[in-house]
Amino acid sequence: MRVRGLIFLATLVLATGSAFAASDPAKAAADAWRQAHERQILDELSGFVSLPDVAANIADVDANAARLEEMLRTRGFAVRLLRASPGTPATVFGELKVPGAKRTVLYYAHYDGQPVGQRGWASPPFTPTIRSGRLGAEGVHDVDWRAAPGPANTDWRLYARAAADDKVTIEALLAAMDALKAADLKPSVNIKLYYEGEEEQGSPHIATIVAANRDLLKTDLIVMGDGPMHQSGRQMVNFGSRGYLGARMTVFGPLRPLHDGHYGSWAPSPAVEIARLIASLRDDSGHILIPHFYDAVRPPTPAEKAALAALPSVEEPLAHDFGIVPITRGRLADSYFRPTLNVRAIHVGDEGPNAANAVATQASASIDFRLTPGETPGDVKALTEHYLASQGWLIVNFPPNLATRLANPKILLLIWDEGSSMPVRTDIEAPAAKASVAAIQRVEREPVLELPMVGASSGIAAVVTGLNAPMVGVSIANYDDNQHAENENIRLGNLWDGIDVYAALLSELDW
Amino acid sequence: MRVRGLIFLATLVLATGSAFAASDPAKAAADAWRQAHERQILDELSGFVSLPDVAANIADVDANAARLEEMLRTRGFAVRLLRASPGTPATVFGELKVPGAKRTVLYYAHYDGQPVGQRGWASPPFTPTIRSGRLGAEGVHDVDWRAAPGPANTDWRLYARAAADDKVTIEALLAAMDALKAADLKPSVNIKLYYEGEEEQGSPHIATIVAANRDLLKTDLIVMGDGPMHQSGRQMVNFGSRGYLGARMTVFGPLRPLHDGHYGSWAPSPAVEIARLIASLRDDSGHILIPHFYDAVRPPTPAEKAALAALPSVEEPLAHDFGIVPITRGRLADSYFRPTLNVRAIHVGDEGPNAANAVATQASASIDFRLTPGETPGDVKALTEHYLASQGWLIVNFPPNLATRLANPKILLLIWDEGSSMPVRTDIEAPAAKASVAAIQRVEREPVLELPMVGASSGIAAVVTGLNAPMVGVSIANYDDNQHAENENIRLGNLWDGIDVYAALLSELDW
Repeated sequence: MRVRGLIFLATLVLATGSAFAASDPAKAAADAWRQAHERQILDELSGFVSLPDVAANIADVDANAARLEEMLRTRGFAVRLLRASPGTPATVFGELKVPGAKRTVLYYAHYDGQPVGQRGWASPPFTPTIRSGRLGAEGVHDVDWRAAPGPANTDWRLYARAAADDKVTIEALLAAMDALKAADLKPSVNIKLYYEGEEEQGSPHIATIVAANRDLLKTDLIVMGDGPMHQSGRQMVNFGSRGYLGARMTVFGPLRPLHDGHYGSWAPSPAVEIARLIASLRDDSGHILIPHFYDAVRPPTPAEKAALAALPSVEEPLAHDFGIVPITRGRLADSYFRPTLNVRAIHVGDEGPNAANAVATQASASIDFRLTPGETPGDVKALTEHYLASQGWLIVNFPPNLATRLANPKILLLIWDEGSSMPVRTDIEAPAAKASVAAIQRVEREPVLELPMVGASSGIAAVVTGLNAPMVGVSIANYDDNQHAENENIRLGNLWDGIDVYAALLSELDW
Repeated sequence: MRVRGLIFLATLVLATGSAFAASDPAKAAADAWRQAHERQILDELSGFVSLPDVAANIADVDANAARLEEMLRTRGFAVRLLRASPGTPATVFGELKVPGAKRTVLYYAHYDGQPVGQRGWASPPFTPTIRSGRLGAEGVHDVDWRAAPGPANTDWRLYARAAADDKVTIEALLAAMDALKAADLKPSVNIKLYYEGEEEQGSPHIATIVAANRDLLKTDLIVMGDGPMHQSGRQMVNFGSRGYLGARMTVFGPLRPLHDGHYGSWAPSPAVEIARLIASLRDDSGHILIPHFYDAVRPPTPAEKAALAALPSVEEPLAHDFGIVPITRGRLADSYFRPTLNVRAIHVGDEGPNAANAVATQASASIDFRLTPGETPGDVKALTEHYLASQGWLIVNFPPNLATRLANPKILLLIWDEGSSMPVRTDIEAPAAKASVAAIQRVEREPVLELPMVGASSGIAAVVTGLNAPMVGVSIANYDDNQHAENENIRLGNLWDGIDVYAALLSELDW
């Protein structure tokens, strides 16, 4: 899950300690194994995150794939590396057939990490370092975890790129496999693993790989492990994500900057045009003004409404933390059932020392849509272009020449982003969905939260639509994991709890 | 006159040669003197423009002031250096009392030049170089003008910073003085000279100097020599300039960039807010949407309308040259009777490799107004702020703190620029105005063009309002003089014609 913004929510308290239903055999097995093998588990994860894994460097991701292949074979998985073409990052596919199992579950995660150019890394991104807590908190210090006596503190954190996003989910699943084996507990389903190597690059080949391996990947359920947990620290399951579509827009003024005293009431102003164009697309409350934009939007079902209402309230502390007055009175999670039009950037003219009293030559803006189920990137492109044309814009795909400029007062260069993704949403009442929540609930003390869909978009959409399978999202990383930023980290308590969650999903899922 | 944009209008032909009314004594005297002293005139101007004159360097402008003082004393002027305070650039004030003259005329020009950091100077900016024509035209070459036989070609150009903007007007006036003296023609009015040394810095002390020297500067007419001629090459007189007022605006979103998938329909978007704010101020046709903004605007008088109608049409070739469809069907000069709201810049978010699918933290815009007579910067500030407040904006003068952010959905940090200028317009039918046109007409073959007001703004407004005198603007520089850019230049034919114009103004002005 590509998450560029992070939240640091000081006013919400992380659920600490280990909430559990002591009687569950999967949890008992997972806890027993983990307590006896904490350092072994940390050692494996630590070794894994010590491998540089920025997907732009193919040699690095190949080394990760080789390590991952070895980690899977050790656990008895049959492994294949799936590539769209030579020289592109491999998807590490693992398969474990379970005699007698009637269902198959495919687990998705990615082993590549975000670029590491951020300033402020307290230790090198590929030198895994365990600290006593969250950097910036009082008294936080490095921990010599190999030498420390007794069990690791659950509030310790492992700092490294990709530790949370999302190699930890791979490690949690593999540790759960080890725990089940040691306790002689058999997985309840056939297991397939889809571990992607270029998610942080935007998953450019995921649709190709899925299409080329549809039979191999065939599954009854997809479990998506990417992303952080709910801000409350409670275990949450989600059932979908919004679609994505971006575009860059440029509008044109005079060929040269013109003195606005001489020409300001006579020459067209690209600054004003881009502002009015954007104002014609969206209002301050987030409502999209393109006609028929909401026609295809499906409102939440009664079950989804009930799930939304059961979510802990986070709006007031979030608004305080962000320093904002929200633009809608509703719940944050409710907003994911509506499409979003976000304006990423607007740029025109110079400010500061280079500011000129001039009519600028052009203005640019960058926008992106988040789409809800029922909408497709193709439909949204058509609706948007039709509306802009009706507003008098001549839409072009390349910069206009002089004749075009002289013949048209309003010219819009509109370039849609190459990547887009479909919205996906699994019915919260589907048997596989309900079974997943029930399995996880067995290792949780508090009720599992159900988020009908997340607001972000994901390359997983291509897997879900390509395989035509239901999907549940199960995240285990702490919400304040600094994913995509400097000092990415995973809290050890979250890893331990995650092993419980995976042990239950692997051995107790049944529908 | 601060002109940041230039026009290069290949489709309009410069009036070449010397249109003249052969019988005029001032013109006869000017031509005779100039023909006999071309190299002496060029020598003086060349020496003057060889002095670096960027006003940010006080030693440089002081050296210019000293040279100018000497040039004036040689012609019999009483000279004083007027400064707002020690260490600021001096206004070189010259005075020549003419026995029996009943009127006094104050000539304004500036001797400082624009900064010279532009790329593309064909010769160093303070190494005056004469070339055979306009750089870029075919066959243009350097001219060894001191050694060349016969008279200088009128299409030769002197290249140097401040050659056109506007030391040439000073040289033209002084050469005209020399010519009149040689022909024993007496000035018809008392002459005062106001030669400013910091116009290109925005004339920060001009109001102070005028206020402190009101009696010394007292005059019946101000002749403003700054700026280029009409694009047609015909001699033009203008009678005013628009006022100026600028502002920077910042609106606020969350304290940190937020992932727009998670928060795009819930957190306020500063990109959308700044776009809607700008769209609420102006439409695409240039109409300002602030209520009552046009109440104080004075429409052109019948005489002004007649003068506007007599201007040569420039709109079609200009639109072609700029590659635009104009936003109004009217004449360019008509638009100067309306106020302009220009958006200099809008900036929010990142584009290109740093683009993020994020809700940005803030958005900024920079705007400026051009005001017509009847409007004042103070009134426009009040109208604008009142309107924005009515639109729900909380207007602040410094960045908001957390409590302000949490209590107000729409916060606008509004900083008005320090400098502003009043609009000024002399009645085109005022006796001094009509007399000025009549005097110039005596040395012109074609009718002198009358532009009721220019679209730009000028520090001269402070002189006009401070002295409460009528003003005429008489420019002599070629329109394609590259003022404010690299390779600034003055065409020699324009200097020769300018000497004629000044000779007539000095000796034949009478009302």
